[in-house]
Amino acid sequence: MFEQIDREVFLAYSTYTTIVLLKMMFMGPLTGYFRLTRKVFTNPEDARAHGGKDEETKRKYMRTDPDIERVRRCHQNDLENIVPFIGIGLLYAFTGPDPSTALLHFRIFAGARIFHSIAYLVPLPQPARGLSWMVGMGVTFSMAYRVLKIGMHL
Amino acid sequence: MFEQIDREVFLAYSTYTTIVLLKMMFMGPLTGYFRLTRKVFTNPEDARAHGGKDEETKRKYMRTDPDIERVRRCHQNDLENIVPFIGIGLLYAFTGPDPSTALLHFRIFAGARIFHSIAYLVPLPQPARGLSWMVGMGVTFSMAYRVLKIGMHL
Amino acid sequence: MFEQIDREVFLAYSTYTTIVLLKMMFMGPLTGYFRLTRKVFTNPEDARAHGGKDEETKRKYMRTDPDIERVRRCHQNDLENIVPFIGIGLLYAFTGPDPSTALLHFRIFAGARIFHSIAYLVPLPQPARGLSWMVGMGVTFSMAYRVLKIGMHL
Repeated sequence: MFEQIDREVFLAYSTYTTIVLLKMMFMGPLTGYFRLTRKVFTNPEDARAHGGKDEETKRKYMRTDPDIERVRRCHQNDLENIVPFIGIGLLYAFTGPDPSTALLHFRIFAGARIFHSIAYLVPLPQPARGLSWMVGMGVTFSMAYRVLKIGMHL
Repeated sequence: MFEQIDREVFLAYSTYTTIVLLKMMFMGPLTGYFRLTRKVFTNPEDARAHGGKDEETKRKYMRTDPDIERVRRCHQNDLENIVPFIGIGLLYAFTGPDPSTALLHFRIFAGARIFHSIAYLVPLPQPARGLSWMVGMGVTFSMAYRVLKIGMHL
Repeated sequence: MFEQIDREVFLAYSTYTTIVLLKMMFMGPLTGYFRLTRKVFTNPEDARAHGGKDEETKRKYMRTDPDIERVRRCHQNDLENIVPFIGIGLLYAFTGPDPSTALLHFRIFAGARIFHSIAYLVPLPQPARGLSWMVGMGVTFSMAYRVLKIGMHL
C-alpha cells in the first residue's frame, strides 16, 4: 500500500518542512530581541546580565510585556500546528500522492503559516489570523485523511 | 544493524502517529470554541472581533478562564509527550521490531494518551491522569531503549 | 539529488535524536517531582490527591513556585529547539553529508542542549545559557542550509 517515496514529493516535503521550521525558529530570536531592547526578563540571571546590577533595577526588569507575550503566543501556535504538519506530512509523502497535489498542500500550508505569523504580530484585525490558522489545519487534516484512507493497521 | 523497515510496522506507526496527532490538534479548536462561547480572549483584536466593540466590553472580555487554561495545559502536555513518541517511534520502527510487539507499543501509547485527555478534561480524580501519563512515558522509554540497544553511534 | 541514506549517518541521527528527546522528556518527571515534594499544584484534583483534603489546604496548594516555573521554561525551550533539530536533522541525514561532519553537527547540538539545561536549572550566570542556546540554533541553521542547498522544490 505504501509506495516507494517519489523523489519529487520528498524534495518538496523537505523544502517546505525546512521553511516552516525556520520560520518557527525565528520566533525565538525575535523574543530575545524584544527582551533585550525593552529590558523585560523572566529569569533573574538575565535581568542581572543586562543592566540589572542592583536589586531594585533587577526587580524592575522582571516583568511581562504585551508585545513579547504576543510573540510567545505566536511561537506556541506554530509549535501546535507545525508539529502535526511535519509528522503527518512525512507519512503523506509516503502514500504516493500526485506530485502536483502534494506540492499544492505544502505550498498552501507554508503560505497560511507565514501569513498567520504576520497577522499575529502586526496584528491584523480578525478574522485574518483565524482564517489562516484554519487553512493550515485544513491542509493537515486533508493529508491525514489520505494517510488513513491509503492504509490503516489498528 | 538497522533493518529494512517492515511494511506492517510502518503502517501501524503511520496509523497511530496520525491518530495521536489528530487528537492533539483537536485541542486547538476546543480552545477556540470555549473562547468564542465564553467570550474569553487574550488578544485585543479577538475581543474586538467577537463583540467587544467599545473599550469597556473589550477589556471585560480579556481575561482567563479556568476551563480554557485546563484545555491549554492538556494541549501542552500532549506536545511534550507526543513529540518524543513520534520521533523515537519512527526510529524504533526502523529497528526491525516484531510487528505484534510494535503494535502493542503503539496501541498502548494511543490508548493512554486518549485516556489522559479525558482524565484531564472531565476531570477525573487523580491518579487517573497521572497514571495514564506514566504509561505513555513508559512506552516511549521502552522504544528508546530498543533504539539505543540495537545500535548506537556516539 | 537526495542520496540513499548512509547507514552510519542514520545511526548517528538515531542515537542523538533519542538522547535529546530523552533529555527533554526528563523535564516532565522533574516538574512532577517538584510539584509533589513542594505541594505546588495547578489542578485542583492534584491538590486534593496530595494532601489538600479540606478546601483551605487545597487552595493553599494551588500556587506557583519560581523553581517549578523555571523547569517549565526549560522544558518549553527544549520543545522550541529540539523539534526543529529532529525535523531538519532527518532531512539533513538524507542529503548524503560526510559522516564525520554529520556526527559533528549532532554531537555539538546534543552537547549544547545538555549544557543549556544545566545552565537553566542551576542556574549559571548569563551568558552561559544564552550562548548554548545560540550554538544549538547554529547547528540547526547549518543543517537547514545544506538541506535547501542540496535541493529545493518550491
